[in-house]
This record gives sequence, C-alpha cells and structure tokens, in this order.
Amino acid sequence: MNLNIRTATPADFDAIWPVFHTIAAAGETYAYPRDIDRDTAYRLWMERPRQTWVAEENGTLLGTYYLKTNQPGPGAHICNCGYMTSPDARGKGVATAMCRHSKKTALEFGYKAMQFNFVASTNKGAVRLWQKLGFEIVGRLPRAFNHPAHGYVDALVMFQWLENTHE
Amino acid sequence: MNLNIRTATPADFDAIWPVFHTIAAAGETYAYPRDIDRDTAYRLWMERPRQTWVAEENGTLLGTYYLKTNQPGPGAHICNCGYMTSPDARGKGVATAMCRHSKKTALEFGYKAMQFNFVASTNKGAVRLWQKLGFEIVGRLPRAFNHPAHGYVDALVMFQWLENTHE
Repeated sequence: MNLNIRTATPADFDAIWPVFHTIAAAGETYAYPRDIDRDTAYRLWMERPRQTWVAEENGTLLGTYYLKTNQPGPGAHICNCGYMTSPDARGKGVATAMCRHSKKTALEFGYKAMQFNFVASTNKGAVRLWQKLGFEIVGRLPRAFNHPAHGYVDALVMFQWLENTHE
Repeated sequence: MNLNIRTATPADFDAIWPVFHTIAAAGETYAYPRDIDRDTAYRLWMERPRQTWVAEENGTLLGTYYLKTNQPGPGAHICNCGYMTSPDARGKGVATAMCRHSKKTALEFGYKAMQFNFVASTNKGAVRLWQKLGFEIVGRLPRAFNHPAHGYVDALVMFQWLENTHE
C-alpha cells in the first residue's frame, strides 16, 4: 500500500461524507447521531477539530482522521483523535497508518498525550489495534454506548502518554 | 439554608461571571482556560449546555450548574453536569443541593446516567462529595490535569447510573 496522508481541504468532504455517513448510520462505533446530516458532519469533522487529514492511495480516499484538544486549560496538553476507514479499505492497515501519523503530529503540535473518550467495548478490533499501538484502557463507562444490536454496552476510555515514548 | 434553585436567565450571568472567573482563574478544578474571557464563559456555561440553573438564597447567588448531553447518538442517554459554588458560600451544602437537583432533573429529561469527565484528583473534597452522592470512579487519566501548584496530576472520570437508583 502506498498511502499518502495529507491535510484535508473543504473539497475533500465530498469523498469523506459517504464514509462518515456509512459509519455514523451504522451506529456501532462513533458517538454521532445515526441520522446526522451532511452540514453537521462537516462542522464536527472539518471545522471543530484543530486539523483534519485524509489518507489516499492513487487519489482515492481510504481514510480520514481529525485531531483536536481534548480539554481546554488544565487539560490542554492532551489531544483527541477520531479515525474513519472507508469500508472498502478495511484490513489494509489504514487505521494503523493514520494512528501512527496522528501520534507524530500530536507531538509536533506540542501535545503530551492522546485520549480516546468513548470506544465501544464491542468494537474489539479497534480496542486491540489501539492497545497494539500503545494505548491503555484507563476507564470503563458502564452501559454508556447504546449499540443497535447489543443494547447498552460499556464504553472504554483509552489513553497514551506520548512524550518521551517510542513504539 | 433556604436555597432556591431555578433556571438561569441571561441576566443571571452578571452574578455568575465573578464566581466563574474566580474558579477558572484559579485553575485548580475546571478544564477552562485560566484567562477565559466573559463572552467565551457565557457561551460555555449558558449557551452550549441544554440548561443552566442558579442556586440562590434571598436573591443572592450561591451557586450555579449546567446540564448537557455528554455524547450524541449512541451516548445520548448520559448527561454531564458542572457545578460552581460561590467562594463565599462554601461549606453550606450548596454543591450537594445542586447535585441532588441535577440528578432529579436528569431523570425528568430522560437521561439514564450522569458522567463527570475530568475531576482533578487533587480536588479531594469534590471527589468525596460525588462519591457520597453515588458517583463511582470509573476512570483515571494519568497526569491529565495540569495543576498550578502540583503540576501534572491525575484526572478522574466519575459516573452514576440514575435510572431505578435511589440515594
């Protein structure tokens, strides 16, 4: 795979939206309304974060991620990222590549740690991947994720200190 | 104490702001920028939440709190609250009264649980109070809170399932 990760432009949302919409509508992994509209999604994915990236192969979007400050003030040294891989591109290491890229970027931006606030515990592939990439489960929110098939399942808080850390 | 808790109006922010500003500037308990300006504070405390309340005694503001949905979509059954007690009114049970009020309101609004995302572990009085009021520590974020006196200290995630629960 020859993946190119670059900063997203507003025009990239044409390719991002079908991926975002599919993942949000499934309701299995992200805390977005399942019926989210395109404008709201644009605001949440492209405008509210500090920066958004796309991962492409030969000009085709395979994934996208954002980075933002997780909490202002006394928590501002910790960032939060969200990653989406195109359903057509699963199993190719796109999420791994984006996560590695995000950790490097986070350090360049001056963050000391990264936190995922709300990982559905049923999303075992993602949990394993984040653990492999150095994240620890630091919290378990009981029945905090309303899964369309499994009902109320636990959500996990995952965390990694980045500064002076090497994979 | 004859505390009256009622929905805040925009005019109440004249009395809320000195309390908010003092607490934010101290930087010891809330994840707000220490140099936050009044307009930003108004947006965060009065506009972004689903609703905001004031706690008064004889027309004097002793405390204020907000309630909002903590995560949209699959997490929308959980709310988040933030409470501020006037420094002049500490030790009178204002936070306890506001928290009890918020738990009742949360159920009326249809929420099933309440979560505090970022409680400074050094804020032992608050941690003890939330535990007394039924919250459990469900997560510990290592060195996630940059305390002005103690440096990087852990932040706690606290959680309470409300539905079918009685104090």
